[in-house]
Amino acid sequence: MGFEEMTTTSKTQIGHFFEDFRVGQEIPHATPRTLTEGDVSLYIALYGSRFAINSSLEFARALGLPNAPADDALVFHLVLGKTVPDISLNAIANLGYASGRFGVPLYPGDTLSAASRVLGLRQNKDAKTGVVYVRSIGRNQRGEMVLDYCRWVMVRKRDPAAPAPEPLVPEFPEAVAGSELSVPPLLDLRGYDRTLAGSPYLWEDYEVGERIDHVDGLTIEEADHMLATRLYQNTARVHFNQHAEKDGRFGRRIVYGGHIISLARSLSFNGLGNAFKLVAINGGRHVAPSFAGDTIYAWSEVLDKTTLPGHEDVGVLRIRTVATKDRPGHDFPFKDAEGRYDPAVVLDFDYQVLIPRRGDA
Amino acid sequence: MGFEEMTTTSKTQIGHFFEDFRVGQEIPHATPRTLTEGDVSLYIALYGSRFAINSSLEFARALGLPNAPADDALVFHLVLGKTVPDISLNAIANLGYASGRFGVPLYPGDTLSAASRVLGLRQNKDAKTGVVYVRSIGRNQRGEMVLDYCRWVMVRKRDPAAPAPEPLVPEFPEAVAGSELSVPPLLDLRGYDRTLAGSPYLWEDYEVGERIDHVDGLTIEEADHMLATRLYQNTARVHFNQHAEKDGRFGRRIVYGGHIISLARSLSFNGLGNAFKLVAINGGRHVAPSFAGDTIYAWSEVLDKTTLPGHEDVGVLRIRTVATKDRPGHDFPFKDAEGRYDPAVVLDFDYQVLIPRRGDA
Amino acid sequence: MGFEEMTTTSKTQIGHFFEDFRVGQEIPHATPRTLTEGDVSLYIALYGSRFAINSSLEFARALGLPNAPADDALVFHLVLGKTVPDISLNAIANLGYASGRFGVPLYPGDTLSAASRVLGLRQNKDAKTGVVYVRSIGRNQRGEMVLDYCRWVMVRKRDPAAPAPEPLVPEFPEAVAGSELSVPPLLDLRGYDRTLAGSPYLWEDYEVGERIDHVDGLTIEEADHMLATRLYQNTARVHFNQHAEKDGRFGRRIVYGGHIISLARSLSFNGLGNAFKLVAINGGRHVAPSFAGDTIYAWSEVLDKTTLPGHEDVGVLRIRTVATKDRPGHDFPFKDAEGRYDPAVVLDFDYQVLIPRRGDA
Repeated sequence: MGFEEMTTTSKTQIGHFFEDFRVGQEIPHATPRTLTEGDVSLYIALYGSRFAINSSLEFARALGLPNAPADDALVFHLVLGKTVPDISLNAIANLGYASGRFGVPLYPGDTLSAASRVLGLRQNKDAKTGVVYVRSIGRNQRGEMVLDYCRWVMVRKRDPAAPAPEPLVPEFPEAVAGSELSVPPLLDLRGYDRTLAGSPYLWEDYEVGERIDHVDGLTIEEADHMLATRLYQNTARVHFNQHAEKDGRFGRRIVYGGHIISLARSLSFNGLGNAFKLVAINGGRHVAPSFAGDTIYAWSEVLDKTTLPGHEDVGVLRIRTVATKDRPGHDFPFKDAEGRYDPAVVLDFDYQVLIPRRGDA
Repeated sequence: MGFEEMTTTSKTQIGHFFEDFRVGQEIPHATPRTLTEGDVSLYIALYGSRFAINSSLEFARALGLPNAPADDALVFHLVLGKTVPDISLNAIANLGYASGRFGVPLYPGDTLSAASRVLGLRQNKDAKTGVVYVRSIGRNQRGEMVLDYCRWVMVRKRDPAAPAPEPLVPEFPEAVAGSELSVPPLLDLRGYDRTLAGSPYLWEDYEVGERIDHVDGLTIEEADHMLATRLYQNTARVHFNQHAEKDGRFGRRIVYGGHIISLARSLSFNGLGNAFKLVAINGGRHVAPSFAGDTIYAWSEVLDKTTLPGHEDVGVLRIRTVATKDRPGHDFPFKDAEGRYDPAVVLDFDYQVLIPRRGDA
Repeated sequence: MGFEEMTTTSKTQIGHFFEDFRVGQEIPHATPRTLTEGDVSLYIALYGSRFAINSSLEFARALGLPNAPADDALVFHLVLGKTVPDISLNAIANLGYASGRFGVPLYPGDTLSAASRVLGLRQNKDAKTGVVYVRSIGRNQRGEMVLDYCRWVMVRKRDPAAPAPEPLVPEFPEAVAGSELSVPPLLDLRGYDRTLAGSPYLWEDYEVGERIDHVDGLTIEEADHMLATRLYQNTARVHFNQHAEKDGRFGRRIVYGGHIISLARSLSFNGLGNAFKLVAINGGRHVAPSFAGDTIYAWSEVLDKTTLPGHEDVGVLRIRTVATKDRPGHDFPFKDAEGRYDPAVVLDFDYQVLIPRRGDA
C-alpha cells in the first residue's frame, strides 16, 4: 500500500523503520510458500525431531489425519520468515511472543501465506528506537488459519527527529485460554500407539510443577543455522553475513532465535515424547543470543494441566521449556532470587501442547 | 562410444584429457536425474531464494503453470554436473559460458538427461593444456529441451607430445537473440501478484544503464558448498577433498563457480524481485575463485530492455550481475580503466530475464 | 513391554544398560518413518551418490520398478537409527555387523518400522561392560521385510555388581548364502542402459581378487555428519554434543560409522558404477573412528562372483570395500603381516551387490 516507496534506495528494499509503522496498518507479506516433503526431511535433518506424527504417514493416518502434518515449529518459522522483510529487517531485538494459536495443520502440498497488523507502537526514551507490536497470521491456500501469533520487536528509527507516535502497548493474556485452542478436526487418538511414539507417558502421568531434564545437547554449526534460516526464507542479515558481523555487536553471526526453539522442542522429545502437537504459544523470550559452537540443552516444567470440553482422548499441558547453552539442565537453571536469568539461559518458552489421555474412564 | 577405454585405469574413470576430444564428437552423459521437491527445498535452504514462482504452487498456478518450476539456476547446475565426469574432470579452469537458452520449465517429477557435442578445440602454446568448447543440452523425459548452452574449459593433456588438433574456435554471439528466447507456453502473467512476489517494480520501471546494489551478503561455509555441489552430482575434485587440496594451488577447497551464480541470483531478488525467470545466459566468467569463509555480495546493471513479439504481458531485461567477495556493492566495483577486474570481483554474469510488463496499454 | 521403566530417570529415557537385556527379548522400536523424496535429495546432497537407479524415476521404470528406490545404505541407516534409543544409547562401541539381507525395495511414500530381538549376551571380564548381539528387522507398511541384519555392540553396565548372564555368542556365517539373497520381484535388466548408468563394466568384467582404487576423497564437515545422523533419527550422543565430547575419549564429536559406509559406497561408484543394489551385508567393522576434517578415500576388492538361479540378467559380486582417512587407496592399504589394520583404515565392509550380466549367452 505505497508502504514500499518510503523504504527503498533505488529499487533495493532496506526494510522499514520505526516511523514507517502506523497502528492498525495491515501488511500483506510476500513469498507464498508451498510446504513440501523436502521441507519436512530438512527439518528432521536439522533438528533430529522424532515426534511420530510428523515422521510417519501411517502413524498420522491411524489418528484420522490425511497425511503427516508439518512440525508446528516449522510452521512458526515459515510464518515468521515471511514477516521479516516488512517487520524486522531493521530490528535490533526480537523481544517477545504472545497469544500464539495454531489452527489447521499444514500438510505437504499446502501453500502458506502471511499478513500482519500493527497492534501497538511505543518509542523508546532514547528517541532512536521504538517497539513495534504486530499480530501475524499465516493461512493455507483455502484461507484457513494455520498460525495466529503476536510478537514485538525493537526497531531503529531512520530519523531520530521523526515525531513519536501516540504510545499504544497492547495487553496480552498470560496464557492462551483453553476455549481458543484448536484441535485438528479429524484427530482421533484411539489409534495412538505409545510404543511407536516412543514414550509411555500420557496426560495423567504429568503433574503440575514437575520438572524434566531433557539430558541431551546439540552443538550448533554455522552451516546448520544458516541452512535452517534460509529454508524459512528469513532474510534477517545478522544470521548470514560474517563480513559485516565481524564489526557488529558480537563479532559474529547470531543464530536465529527460532532455531533454538526447534532445538529445544526436539530435545524435549526425551521426556515429553507424546506431547505431539503445539496448540499455543503463551509467551517466549530469547534471553540471550546463541552462536555457532554453542551446545544447546533444555529442560521443561509442567506449568498447568487442563482438559478440553468434548475431547475425552486428549489433554493439554502448559509447559515452560528453558534452553541453555554449554550447561546441562539437570539442576534446572532458570532465574536467581532477584529474577535475573542464569547466564546460561538462552530461551524461556511458555507454550501448550496436546497429549493423549489414558481414557481409562 | 568407446570413449571410456582411453581414460580409465583398471575400472576407475579418471576423466578425459585434451587429446581425447574430437570436434564434432557427441557425448551422452550419465546419471539421469529426476527433479524432486526435495531438490527444491534444498535449493531454498542453500540460497534462501525468494522468487515466488519457484516457492509456491499456487502462485505458479495463477500464472497458468501446472506446478512451481525448478529455479533456472538449479537446472543449470544439474545439467552442468552431468557434464563434469566427461568434460571437465581434468579441467584446470572453467573459462566461460555463452549462448545459453532455457527451454521448457523443469517440474518436480521430470527427469533430466544431458548430452554434449564438442564444438571446438585449441591447444595452448605450452602444449600441456588446451581449450575444449562444448555445447551441452539438457532434456526432460519427453526429449524437450530444458537448457542448451555452451561452455569452454581448459583441460590438461595426458601426454604433452600428443599432436595438436587443427584449432577451431567457435564464435558466440554477444547476446542470445530475442527470437531464440523461449517463454513457457502456458504462462499468462495477468494473474501476477506483485505484493505476493515481493516487489513493485515491473519492466517499465527499469532503465538501461541503471545499477542496483543488492545490499546483502551471504557467507559461504564448507558444508554449504559441498552439499550444493554434491546435490548437483558434480564430481569435480577440487570442491571436496581437503587432503589433496591442502597441497594444491590454493591450499584449500575451491567453491564450485555455479554456487556463486546461485548466491548472486538469490541476492539479486532485492532489487530484481519480479525478474522471475532466466531465459538466456549471454556470457559468464568466474573471475576469481571463492572459498569457504568468503562473504558474497552482488550488484546488477540493466544492459538492455526488449520486448517479445506476441507477448504483451512480459518483457526482457538483459542484466549483468557482478558478485564480489568481502566487499559490498554500493559503489559497483567492476573494472578499472585498463579493463582489469577489481580484485574483489568473483563473477561477471550476463543474462536475460523475463519480467512482467505493466500492460497499461 | 515394561522395559522402559527400568531405564528412565523421572520421564527421561537414558537408554538401556547391559543388565537390562535378556536373550530372546523382542524390542519394537519407536518412530516409524515415511521415506520421502526429501530424504532421497538429502542423501544425494550428503554423499553425491550417482547410482542411476536411485537418481532417476525413468531409469528405474525402464528396469520394471514402479519408482526409484531409496539407496540401500539410506535404508540401513534409517533402520539402525531406530534401534539406537533401545540398543546402543549406552554403547561404547559398535563392534560389527553380520547376516544382513535387503528385502523389498523401499520407495518414497513407504513407511519403515523396525524391531529387534536379542540374540546373545556376553559380559566382559572387567564386569563393567558386555556385548549385546541383536537381530534387527525393518519392515514397510505392508509388513514386508526391507532389511534384516545382525549387529553387536559393547554396552555399559549400570551396576557392575549385577550378575552376569549365561554367555551366549551367536555364530554368523562368513557370508550370506546365495539362496537367501533377494532380487526385487519386478526387476528386469533388459532395459539397463550402461551409458546412462555411467559405467561400461558388467558382471563378466570383474575377476575375483581384482582390486579397484576409487580415487576420489571426500572431506567430512561437522555440519554434514550431524545433518546425516539426525536425518536418520539416530540419537547416539557422541555425534552431536561438543560440550560433552570435549571431555570425552577423543575430545571431539565422533562421526556415525554409517556415514563412512555411505561415503565409501558413493566413492565406489567410480569403478563399480553398475553395482546398482546391495543385497547382503556379510560383515562390517568400524576399525577406527572418524572426525570432522578427515578426508575419506576407498578401495575395493572383488572377493567372489556368483550367479543366481533363475536370474540370467543379473549376477552377484561379493565386495570388500576398505575406507581410509587422509590416505589415498592406490596401494590398497589394509592389514600388515600380523593382521593389524593399517592405521589409516577406518572401515572394513564385506557385502554383496547385484550387477547386470552381459547376457550374451
